[in-house]
Amino acid sequence: MTRRDPVLAWETLLDLGDGPAPLRDRLERAIRDAVHSGRLPPSAGLPPSRTLAETLGVSRWVVTETYGQLVAEGFLEATVGSGTRVPPGRTHPLAPSRVQEVRESNDAPDAVPLRAEYRRPRLDLGPGVPDLRHVPRARWAGAVRRALDGLPDAEFTVVDRLGHPLARTAVADYLSRSRRAIAAPDDIVITHGATDGMAGVVAGLRAAGHTALLVEDPSWSRLREIAAAAGLTPVPVPVDASGVDVDVLVDAAGRTGARAALITPAHQFPLGAALSPARREAIVHWAREVDGLVIEDDYDAEFRYDRRPIAALQGLAPDHVVLIGSLSKSMAQAFGLGWAVVPRALRERVPLAERARPSTLDQVALAEFITAGDLERHVRAARGRFRRRRAALLTALGRELPGLEVTGIAAGMHAVLELPPGVDASAVRRAAADVEIAVSELTGYRASAATAGIEALVLGYGNLSDALVDEAVARLAGVIRSLA
Amino acid sequence: MTRRDPVLAWETLLDLGDGPAPLRDRLERAIRDAVHSGRLPPSAGLPPSRTLAETLGVSRWVVTETYGQLVAEGFLEATVGSGTRVPPGRTHPLAPSRVQEVRESNDAPDAVPLRAEYRRPRLDLGPGVPDLRHVPRARWAGAVRRALDGLPDAEFTVVDRLGHPLARTAVADYLSRSRRAIAAPDDIVITHGATDGMAGVVAGLRAAGHTALLVEDPSWSRLREIAAAAGLTPVPVPVDASGVDVDVLVDAAGRTGARAALITPAHQFPLGAALSPARREAIVHWAREVDGLVIEDDYDAEFRYDRRPIAALQGLAPDHVVLIGSLSKSMAQAFGLGWAVVPRALRERVPLAERARPSTLDQVALAEFITAGDLERHVRAARGRFRRRRAALLTALGRELPGLEVTGIAAGMHAVLELPPGVDASAVRRAAADVEIAVSELTGYRASAATAGIEALVLGYGNLSDALVDEAVARLAGVIRSLA
Repeated sequence: MTRRDPVLAWETLLDLGDGPAPLRDRLERAIRDAVHSGRLPPSAGLPPSRTLAETLGVSRWVVTETYGQLVAEGFLEATVGSGTRVPPGRTHPLAPSRVQEVRESNDAPDAVPLRAEYRRPRLDLGPGVPDLRHVPRARWAGAVRRALDGLPDAEFTVVDRLGHPLARTAVADYLSRSRRAIAAPDDIVITHGATDGMAGVVAGLRAAGHTALLVEDPSWSRLREIAAAAGLTPVPVPVDASGVDVDVLVDAAGRTGARAALITPAHQFPLGAALSPARREAIVHWAREVDGLVIEDDYDAEFRYDRRPIAALQGLAPDHVVLIGSLSKSMAQAFGLGWAVVPRALRERVPLAERARPSTLDQVALAEFITAGDLERHVRAARGRFRRRRAALLTALGRELPGLEVTGIAAGMHAVLELPPGVDASAVRRAAADVEIAVSELTGYRASAATAGIEALVLGYGNLSDALVDEAVARLAGVIRSLA
Repeated sequence: MTRRDPVLAWETLLDLGDGPAPLRDRLERAIRDAVHSGRLPPSAGLPPSRTLAETLGVSRWVVTETYGQLVAEGFLEATVGSGTRVPPGRTHPLAPSRVQEVRESNDAPDAVPLRAEYRRPRLDLGPGVPDLRHVPRARWAGAVRRALDGLPDAEFTVVDRLGHPLARTAVADYLSRSRRAIAAPDDIVITHGATDGMAGVVAGLRAAGHTALLVEDPSWSRLREIAAAAGLTPVPVPVDASGVDVDVLVDAAGRTGARAALITPAHQFPLGAALSPARREAIVHWAREVDGLVIEDDYDAEFRYDRRPIAALQGLAPDHVVLIGSLSKSMAQAFGLGWAVVPRALRERVPLAERARPSTLDQVALAEFITAGDLERHVRAARGRFRRRRAALLTALGRELPGLEVTGIAAGMHAVLELPPGVDASAVRRAAADVEIAVSELTGYRASAATAGIEALVLGYGNLSDALVDEAVARLAGVIRSLA
């Protein structure tokens, strides 16, 4: 290397740049950049602090502070006799391109764009999404503010691994009132939602020696996957217009030794039946007989349009039913809040897995929201909206697709549309996606390849704009007719 | 059973009570209570709806609706010819005492009291708790409100399993700025805090075939327990005044095959050393050599009082260091928010476990809080408070316990107080608890029984009221003198 003019060289090598940052920060960054980029290679010496200060036109203090900082971090090395240098053993921590990439990535305004899989389409007939246009933003902000104002200093921590007492009390009251659950505050566990609650319960079942879980077929795939991941083999049980077939369930239990079942008694997902009174009694009877456990996925039970909601099965047998629920269907998934009713005696038999809980602050906000009556107020308003939207959807389907049957009770946020003979549901789904409509095919929820499946679509109307119901159905009808 | 006057009997049996609830709800509850209490036993018939309506002085509609509801739930049974009855197969779902207990529990104002283990004592010298008197309540409420106002409808869901893009971007910026981390938004994973981040990383290490984890001895027990629970055997490595002994670490790694280490380079917990520059370089060198992973627990690195904070080790080797951090020490655990820096390439080698993330809303509030500058504002103010409090604590300790050594660099929220010869730390802890002082003993953090431990206390001053420093130290000194 030929000797360069040291004044010019260091000025060029260490570009302090402009900007409001203190000189010390700018020099530190300049040295880091020079090392990262390889312009200052391993073992390269830095000038004495006085020399560099003069060269750069900064105070000597700026240089000694910066050297000191970088030496303390092991980024530079202070040696006796030869001053400050880049450590000789240093391999470049990163290829220069990677540093550049990270920096550009930090500077880009939309650094991590929303992934396509999470975008909601304009004509949203995807099941399981509530009305995101009517999230109670202001009321929730009020609940958070009250929580922040009212929580004592000492409780700005985690005060109970199963949930803050205020949240457990408010949820117990809510479920007793609106779901006729038999639940005291100590029976409630606060979760992030149904999948989180499910993960805790199946881990407990596994720890208690269970190896299989009876599941409805078809049913929501995600919860089955969670059970399987925890080591519980799903045992599919068929569903008909009276809900899950409990006779078959009892047989399957006897055959496989399964003593736990996951069901949706209030509103079967996706077929839309309510479990008949006789079957409610029968499954509870079975659970008592085998000392088993029923997991009641109470996902959209608040929404019933032809009558009052059916009470939770949990109230019939609180020692054998774990109810799991959340705000995800009644409000929005963004709140990340749910609950499980797991009385202490059950927690002893089925030890809940240690899991990250929603923050204390969110839990206390939930308590504020419920005790102010805002949850029931929101559910009531949503019920009216969904009832009217369901009626509009059925009217439009009757007009556009007069021959096709729509099944499922007047409840929840979805209906099942049977397709004409010969029309393939997955072809409809794909063609619908091309015209900005999200729908799901019924077969996607099958738990067993053996199940004879009808070709049908699951149409969610939770997040479908009222103004777009007719357009969505007309387009969907066009797609179906074009494939018939 | 002798025949009773039916009018009087049903009126007594079904007490509608008073209150604002609709008659239908009151009748429903009265019937449930009668069944639960055993006053209406299995197979007991209910009167025809017209009769009961006349008896109770309510409209017939109230009775038919209530019967219909309870039949739909399987709580009552409608039989052809013999009207409505309690199902004959019904065993009482609950002993009446349990229903009563649940109800009383629901009615009690403080239904689930705060457990004693979570209460903070008046003289709080427990380590790891930040200043709960100075939680930025109003600024956080503002951040939540802005998040609620600004988030598009469609994002009131989960938009990315690793964290909302806004949060990942804000945290990447914050860590680049304040910790000199080399992290792009896509490298960030939003967690509930350090333990949550740790659980995700160790599950990934286990899945990638790791079976051991090098840990500092002493160190924070909780993270070691999480590693052990995930199947990684902790391998203790001693700590001295320059931090973890990297020579011993490298030997232990060679002996056990461990290729992952959990360390606290900025401020060792609990001994309070900063990892020396040479050791920083050496551990990074080791990680590169063995293609290993260093987990950098950056728990209180923002708080340094004698100089600027040492940059994160992560910046020296972002491909071999996972940084985990949170708001729990800088703000409060109640926010339930933290982060891990795990670049995509690392996520491929060490697959992160699927875990419940903080709610979308909390994450976007975090982004608002950081981008408004509120986190750095809070940290700056806290740094000043802790610096002054540390000085006051050291002054008081020097006055009250002049012979005893206090160790640990001027950083964080705790100091280590060596006890006089012959004084047992656990005896001090117990005696201190009797006078409302929480302290921890150093031996409680030991990772191995073999380590020769000095008798010392870990004194946290994060949550100690400034006004109580002198009183706390005077009382503690009294306890120590009484045991000496």
